[in-house]
Amino acid sequence: MTFLQRANQGVQSLSPYQAGKPIEELERELGITNIIKLASNENPFGFPASAKKAIQDQLDNLTRYPDSNGFSLKQTIAKKFGLKPEQITLGNGSNDLVELFAHTFVSEGDEVIFSKYAFIVYPLITKAINATAREIPAKDWGHDLEAFIAAINDKTKLIYISNPNNPTGNFLTHAEIDNFLAKVRSDIIVVLDEAYTEFTAKEERVDSFGLLKKYPNLVVSRSLSKAYGLAGLRIGYAVANEEITGLLNRVRQPFNVNSLALAAAVAVLNDDAFVEKTAENNRKELKRYEAFCQKHGLKYIPSKGNFITIDFEKAAAPINDALLRKGVIVRPIAGYGMPNHLRISVGLPEENDRLFEALLEILGL
Amino acid sequence: MTFLQRANQGVQSLSPYQAGKPIEELERELGITNIIKLASNENPFGFPASAKKAIQDQLDNLTRYPDSNGFSLKQTIAKKFGLKPEQITLGNGSNDLVELFAHTFVSEGDEVIFSKYAFIVYPLITKAINATAREIPAKDWGHDLEAFIAAINDKTKLIYISNPNNPTGNFLTHAEIDNFLAKVRSDIIVVLDEAYTEFTAKEERVDSFGLLKKYPNLVVSRSLSKAYGLAGLRIGYAVANEEITGLLNRVRQPFNVNSLALAAAVAVLNDDAFVEKTAENNRKELKRYEAFCQKHGLKYIPSKGNFITIDFEKAAAPINDALLRKGVIVRPIAGYGMPNHLRISVGLPEENDRLFEALLEILGL
Repeated sequence: MTFLQRANQGVQSLSPYQAGKPIEELERELGITNIIKLASNENPFGFPASAKKAIQDQLDNLTRYPDSNGFSLKQTIAKKFGLKPEQITLGNGSNDLVELFAHTFVSEGDEVIFSKYAFIVYPLITKAINATAREIPAKDWGHDLEAFIAAINDKTKLIYISNPNNPTGNFLTHAEIDNFLAKVRSDIIVVLDEAYTEFTAKEERVDSFGLLKKYPNLVVSRSLSKAYGLAGLRIGYAVANEEITGLLNRVRQPFNVNSLALAAAVAVLNDDAFVEKTAENNRKELKRYEAFCQKHGLKYIPSKGNFITIDFEKAAAPINDALLRKGVIVRPIAGYGMPNHLRISVGLPEENDRLFEALLEILGL
Repeated sequence: MTFLQRANQGVQSLSPYQAGKPIEELERELGITNIIKLASNENPFGFPASAKKAIQDQLDNLTRYPDSNGFSLKQTIAKKFGLKPEQITLGNGSNDLVELFAHTFVSEGDEVIFSKYAFIVYPLITKAINATAREIPAKDWGHDLEAFIAAINDKTKLIYISNPNNPTGNFLTHAEIDNFLAKVRSDIIVVLDEAYTEFTAKEERVDSFGLLKKYPNLVVSRSLSKAYGLAGLRIGYAVANEEITGLLNRVRQPFNVNSLALAAAVAVLNDDAFVEKTAENNRKELKRYEAFCQKHGLKYIPSKGNFITIDFEKAAAPINDALLRKGVIVRPIAGYGMPNHLRISVGLPEENDRLFEALLEILGL
């Protein structure tokens, strides 16, 4: 008997997550330099000086375990958004939180609802815990919330919504989310994964924390890996009512967030100028991507994230390979069932220029 | 219906992990300063300059996601111990790995065996996933391996052994572990949690990586939070055969280890002098603790870790409170079923002196 056969049933059929290729790996593989990475929706401006200073101030303090309760960071988040610290759960990136929700509320035989073409960790964690995935066919690559409602049954425990959706960029409005929540049985946990919310314009952004007052079964998840530029440190947070938060914190690993992430997050959450600069660049450059696609007859999915997904209407893998050879890393998403698409992170103007140029050469346009 | 009732059955009865009290928390609570912390088995020397330099070299690189495969760190570990990178799984601290083993191999209805008075995360994770805990009564506060063998049945999936054991310091020799593994059915995963192994003398240390060749069902877990002084960064590693490692890496969160932990770990694993200095201080000071206890008629559990557990033969909570008021943080372990004991981390000579003095005053000795 192999160890594979001894593993949990769900684990046996699990395909590992495919990360964006690190720059160093491409250097090792192809021996090239001057590489740009537009693959993992990272912040092209890096992270702010305020966070770097906060990290440096903590550098002599790494031998102590992190503060398991994240006192200062929870205070910061609570103050910034008008919440109570008792509503906040900290995660080792929002990936950690996405898994935590399932570990806390979903058992074998329970059902989890999410959309096709949504964040791949939803099906991965559902499978890993031997629960039943109800993957809802997409509408224009995004969430079909009416079909979500129709899929709810007695076994439904958890619903994941990614908004803006990764990897497609689709966006659900406040009214759409509100209407949806009104129709969901109040004992089902609804996770609103807002890893990319900071890239939407303030006037159109979902007031998800406001919705928490109306829907006690709502859990909002946020990331500091994208607009806040801290992907390498691993930090995200979830906001929910105090009872749900208490449960999540029972299951959470006691030291899931490292000390430097805690310190850097406090700094960057207080640095609105940095996030505004990031969002502004993203809005401008996303328009350039759209114009580029329109000019050259390339199909794309309109995006509210910091990435755009282009449909090449033929296998995208050879295009991806050619981009790699030119030192441009983007993200193939065949693993999402989108073999003709590539997801491209919005970079700095000069990085985007290089991507445009490379694509034109490869496609012979 | 409350959300508690909607949570997984195991989660409903879960008590959260009680972390060692952070120094800042005691400052906030009692308004005192000049606090020493001997509560979380942290390294009294901090962490080495080599690791600090490695961190500083990575400080501008925190916006990229960490290397999901931990290429450099796995190379370092493999080279240091004569292993293959394909045998190594990296964790967000060894706590992350302890949970990962269960998530990979244990389903509802399966049984997990561990000792009473062993690391509390074993019962916590077993409960959280609705598996059945077989907690084996201790022999002199340590593992009764014959009783482990007797507890194995068809449902047994996983066995945890903590060696040296936290929080008691008990130690099993190489021969004892070898004899035990020879008697365990080969399809049961045996986790040898060696978070404290670096504190044992080299000549008595278990050759756990050597045992991997004999027992393909063995998984060895190590931490860089103790002797290596990196608790605040969160990093641990597991070593097993390639098939088991492949499974663990399917279930592991893809970015579970942050970039600075990866960099610092490479440096500190190459810094034998630092670990040797740490172990040397620990051996000397542990002898002073034993002499102190013997002189003053205090019972203690002989320890091979970087801590010593004293039995006050009456409720230890008031003693702990009195120590806190004197600015000395140690670890109450009533949550382990040891209400008369306190676990004290071995500190620097002057820190240990202060603990001795405080205890003598409090106990009126």
